[in-house]
Amino acid sequence: MKATIEKRLGLKELADKVVSAEEAAALISDGDVVGMSGFTRAGDAKVVPLALVERAKNEKFQIDVYTGASLGPEVDRYLAEAGVIRKRGPYQGEPALRNLINKGEVLYVDGHLSHVAELVRQNIYGPIKFAIIEACAITKDGYLIPTNSVGNSPILADFAENIIVELNISCSESFIGIHDIYVPEKQGDRGPIPVVSATDRIGEIGIKIDPKKIKAIVISENTDAPSLIVPPDEETDIMANNLLNFLRDEIKAGRLTSKLAPIQSGVGSVANAVLQGFQDSEFEDLEIYSEVLQDAVFHLIDAGKVTFASATSITLSEELGKEVFENMDKYADKLCLRPQEITNQPEIIRRLGLISVNAALEADIYGNVNSTHVSGTRMMNGIGGSGDFARNARLGIFVTKSYAKGGTISSIVPMVSHVDHTEHDVDVLITEQGVADLRGLAPKERVPLIIENCAHPDYKEQLWAYYNDAVKKTGNSQTPHNLEKVFSWYVNYAKNGTMVE
Amino acid sequence: MKATIEKRLGLKELADKVVSAEEAAALISDGDVVGMSGFTRAGDAKVVPLALVERAKNEKFQIDVYTGASLGPEVDRYLAEAGVIRKRGPYQGEPALRNLINKGEVLYVDGHLSHVAELVRQNIYGPIKFAIIEACAITKDGYLIPTNSVGNSPILADFAENIIVELNISCSESFIGIHDIYVPEKQGDRGPIPVVSATDRIGEIGIKIDPKKIKAIVISENTDAPSLIVPPDEETDIMANNLLNFLRDEIKAGRLTSKLAPIQSGVGSVANAVLQGFQDSEFEDLEIYSEVLQDAVFHLIDAGKVTFASATSITLSEELGKEVFENMDKYADKLCLRPQEITNQPEIIRRLGLISVNAALEADIYGNVNSTHVSGTRMMNGIGGSGDFARNARLGIFVTKSYAKGGTISSIVPMVSHVDHTEHDVDVLITEQGVADLRGLAPKERVPLIIENCAHPDYKEQLWAYYNDAVKKTGNSQTPHNLEKVFSWYVNYAKNGTMVE
Repeated sequence: MKATIEKRLGLKELADKVVSAEEAAALISDGDVVGMSGFTRAGDAKVVPLALVERAKNEKFQIDVYTGASLGPEVDRYLAEAGVIRKRGPYQGEPALRNLINKGEVLYVDGHLSHVAELVRQNIYGPIKFAIIEACAITKDGYLIPTNSVGNSPILADFAENIIVELNISCSESFIGIHDIYVPEKQGDRGPIPVVSATDRIGEIGIKIDPKKIKAIVISENTDAPSLIVPPDEETDIMANNLLNFLRDEIKAGRLTSKLAPIQSGVGSVANAVLQGFQDSEFEDLEIYSEVLQDAVFHLIDAGKVTFASATSITLSEELGKEVFENMDKYADKLCLRPQEITNQPEIIRRLGLISVNAALEADIYGNVNSTHVSGTRMMNGIGGSGDFARNARLGIFVTKSYAKGGTISSIVPMVSHVDHTEHDVDVLITEQGVADLRGLAPKERVPLIIENCAHPDYKEQLWAYYNDAVKKTGNSQTPHNLEKVFSWYVNYAKNGTMVE
Repeated sequence: MKATIEKRLGLKELADKVVSAEEAAALISDGDVVGMSGFTRAGDAKVVPLALVERAKNEKFQIDVYTGASLGPEVDRYLAEAGVIRKRGPYQGEPALRNLINKGEVLYVDGHLSHVAELVRQNIYGPIKFAIIEACAITKDGYLIPTNSVGNSPILADFAENIIVELNISCSESFIGIHDIYVPEKQGDRGPIPVVSATDRIGEIGIKIDPKKIKAIVISENTDAPSLIVPPDEETDIMANNLLNFLRDEIKAGRLTSKLAPIQSGVGSVANAVLQGFQDSEFEDLEIYSEVLQDAVFHLIDAGKVTFASATSITLSEELGKEVFENMDKYADKLCLRPQEITNQPEIIRRLGLISVNAALEADIYGNVNSTHVSGTRMMNGIGGSGDFARNARLGIFVTKSYAKGGTISSIVPMVSHVDHTEHDVDVLITEQGVADLRGLAPKERVPLIIENCAHPDYKEQLWAYYNDAVKKTGNSQTPHNLEKVFSWYVNYAKNGTMVE
């Protein structure tokens, strides 16, 4: 192990910074704003947070935690449950943390993932005292090599006063060279970000750090918590087919070629399942320009369908993770991990003309989408990058099953209870019932497509009844609504356990 | 006049295309999709539309009309009232058209103004049969020189099957050289858009056209309908001061320098009045990178406060318009008119780090903004470019008076009745009551700032009562709401003429 550490710690002047997790955790003070590496349970700081959990058993202290995106249980479950997190952003996905957020015990600020780096530059979160960053290696010329994700680590390392490195020696050295680290200058001083193809490398192999800021290096062998996605099911298969058929129609209409365009696919089981649908399709030479690479992408690479995948993180199921991470050499020339400021950058998303597929919690008859809030009040995960992609992509596609909770909830409602993506950012809506292509349509033109093509049959009549009544009451206005009854479905659900009237 | 026409019509092969407005209007067929020049009543086609109005007296026909943004009364009043417009996009602002839209007699699809060019490229509006474009001149090398706006004219001229030119000889020749026409390649084939400063010129002086597509040239001397903005009042003066004080605090915090950053200011009286507030301030060397230049910008140029202004249109009050348009030479080196795909491009807005100021109809206690729909149903104007700017600017600022209709309406409500800008796109909210800086805050942290700093005193108690009840009912969830009562203020207003409970 000593040899491994020496090999991974190329910058020899830092050898005396190697300490225990407890010693590193002791550096953090009550009230600190702490940046951490990690994006969708990948490449997150793990051992120092667990030492903070231990410390919290004997001492009351709280910190604010800002990251790339969601972290694994070390932070978003154990540290949260220990009462150490005062405020958290910009994304989370652990039931334990979600529960604390919705009881008002943790403040949570979700937001567009492309915005976070600018907010750090502007010192909006407050001075960042520490960045805790998992690294695969520190090279002799001072580059910190990330592990399974890049996320916001470059900007956090740049702006933090101090850095703690978790040097994870279980991360394969074949990760070195996979990352492409490029950090734009501040606004007003920067030129174009020169990515013009998903495959472009524009930066450096790691995060250039000021060694003086490194206050501790902790050796870690802990691996990422695996992805929790569930396999495709009959309905996600139908949704995938609906997407494929829609894309075939786009080719027929001359709007896409058979090579399609670089694809972004959101986080979670539904988006993964829909992407998996490409495997048995005729599509080839596909490129991915996404946030997170989930299982489906590696299956598609293995199947020869995907030639290149760019993202900011790799989050895999336990089984596939073992296979992929032990054979990274096999994927090295087909992968690129970038900062999320680059993967989610409107400039690049629009330039490349992505096909973007993200999951919705619910959509309404006019095409507004709720991605985050159950019944308008309780946070699920967060908006993540869905807004960065949906608004700027060539095709902003949202997918959802038409119903939830055994049919007692309709995913198509009169008005969504929280708006994350407005009618102007939702190009196409896909459920297991069908496809609604909303581009270029006025609100009232969208209604029949959404109700007839996307809603579950059990709710169609009820949706039409709402709409027809609203048309009558408003004199057929631009966007008919009856504000007295618009949320009655949620009220009914809360009282009677069903949205069926 | 003949000499003027010869001078303005440099491409001599087109001389035989000069026809009357009636002859040009006769080329349009029932069912045609027609693109028109014009952006906020500036540079719009005028004489052919009026001939279409005449034609409609004896013939029933309908067309779809897509433009830069809102047009003057020739199209958005008279042509609409003649029943000729079946569908209209992407923006309008005439009471007559608004009325028809809200009676369901005209379909209206508003949307982000930066999206329109991509939708045209993708043929989403249907094949564009005719583009009717007002021009100041057609040069001998085939450039069509726009007049007071560029808007979507380049992309419409490129994709339309046929072009009708309104050669407006009342437009001063000093407009030649003010425009900077740059049209990106299609998505996937394009590189960066090379604007790195508000003053950069990256394109050509006019729209390069295929002369074969020009089917008619109509000589016009009609001037644009003047802007309808009203002068600043006591409350907009206070709002302007609130903005200036906020910017001073940003300088103190080290986030801005005294030169600020390029400013975007929305369309309408309130945004104009707030911008006018810079005149008596200490700020100098200001740059504008906006959609529309209204009166305030020219006052600021005259006062030596603004050194350069980039936009896609110039819309002035009658009095100021006469002065400016007859003395364009004076402004030529301080102005640039670009296509709206460039002025509103997220790539450039984020690169330059704009300060963006747009008007809201209403905002809610969590920071969501409604820019378009009165009581969630009746369209006012449209979202326009506010979303392009707010989401991508360094500072997405929204301004509104805290009340409307003599205090019977509160502009701060429990939940906005229509969401145009989500909580993640609204950085700062300013009313005549004060400023709420929402950056980096969780929803529940925003509530006291919005209620205490921005709401009208008459509604503060009522807002707190709603919020406190919602907190209790939801167990203090991420975004407390009581969906049974959330829109009761609108219901009360509809029934009793006031939101006061």
